Amino acid sequence: MALCPLCTKIQEPAPEDLVWEFDHSRAFLGPWQFFPGYCVLVARVHATELFQLERSLRQAFLEEMNQLASAIAQLVQPRKMNYELLGNQIPHLHWHLFARTEGDPNRLKPVWLEVDQAERDPQVKARLELGLWSRSETIRRIRTVLGASNA
Amino acid sequence: MALCPLCTKIQEPAPEDLVWEFDHSRAFLGPWQFFPGYCVLVARVHATELFQLERSLRQAFLEEMNQLASAIAQLVQPRKMNYELLGNQIPHLHWHLFARTEGDPNRLKPVWLEVDQAERDPQVKARLELGLWSRSETIRRIRTVLGASNA
Repeated sequence: MALCPLCTKIQEPAPEDLVWEFDHSRAFLGPWQFFPGYCVLVARVHATELFQLERSLRQAFLEEMNQLASAIAQLVQPRKMNYELLGNQIPHLHWHLFARTEGDPNRLKPVWLEVDQAERDPQVKARLELGLWSRSETIRRIRTVLGASNA
Repeated sequence: MALCPLCTKIQEPAPEDLVWEFDHSRAFLGPWQFFPGYCVLVARVHATELFQLERSLRQAFLEEMNQLASAIAQLVQPRKMNYELLGNQIPHLHWHLFARTEGDPNRLKPVWLEVDQAERDPQVKARLELGLWSRSETIRRIRTVLGASNA
């Protein structure tokens, strides 16, 4: 049986994408930085659904999600955060955390319409990959907020 | 100032859509029953982001979300549950809980591509509104599962 891709990502995190080490999850910078600070928060344990976790682990994982969302929001000051746990392609618990800004022309819609376009249109892809800051600078800024809130 | 539409929904819940009364939220049957058992879980308190809630209230609200998702999954036996808190149009905390089934031709994608189509195409809309069971029967079945798990 092939190893779950997110189990691999947890075991061998790419240093250039790693944002934060939580006790029960790891945060990675996502590919679409048009939504500045977009992160994917991957559970350390392999599970498919939240209700498969024991209650205290679920609550701890969800508090880590909340902590990361709060840090992204503090950094980006979006009009709204979007929190999504899907897993239709990789059924290993992971949150997509998107900051939706006033400058986003599609701010009233879920991000996936544009992301779907990006998979077929290199120009849309290039635009959605581009952020306010470089990827390393974005990671540095998120870490600063998380470090301050954990101090 | 106009009242928030979800505050109105909480204060005057439409009896035909009401699925369950939780302590900190109310569950309503969603319009798109192509995703069988699709519910919207609305927080009783008006808040925009999870991190604006006091920790114990946030944890209780998230446990209610988990309980409802678990009941929908038990009823529908989907390949994956999708959990989404967006609020781009109505910034009052609410979860969209979608059961994604094997029979869904777009099961690898987020639901929103089809939902967006439905807003422009009456045929897609009619298909997505149709469920495995009537709306009242769906509500009855979810209540039975929730009632058993709360007994």
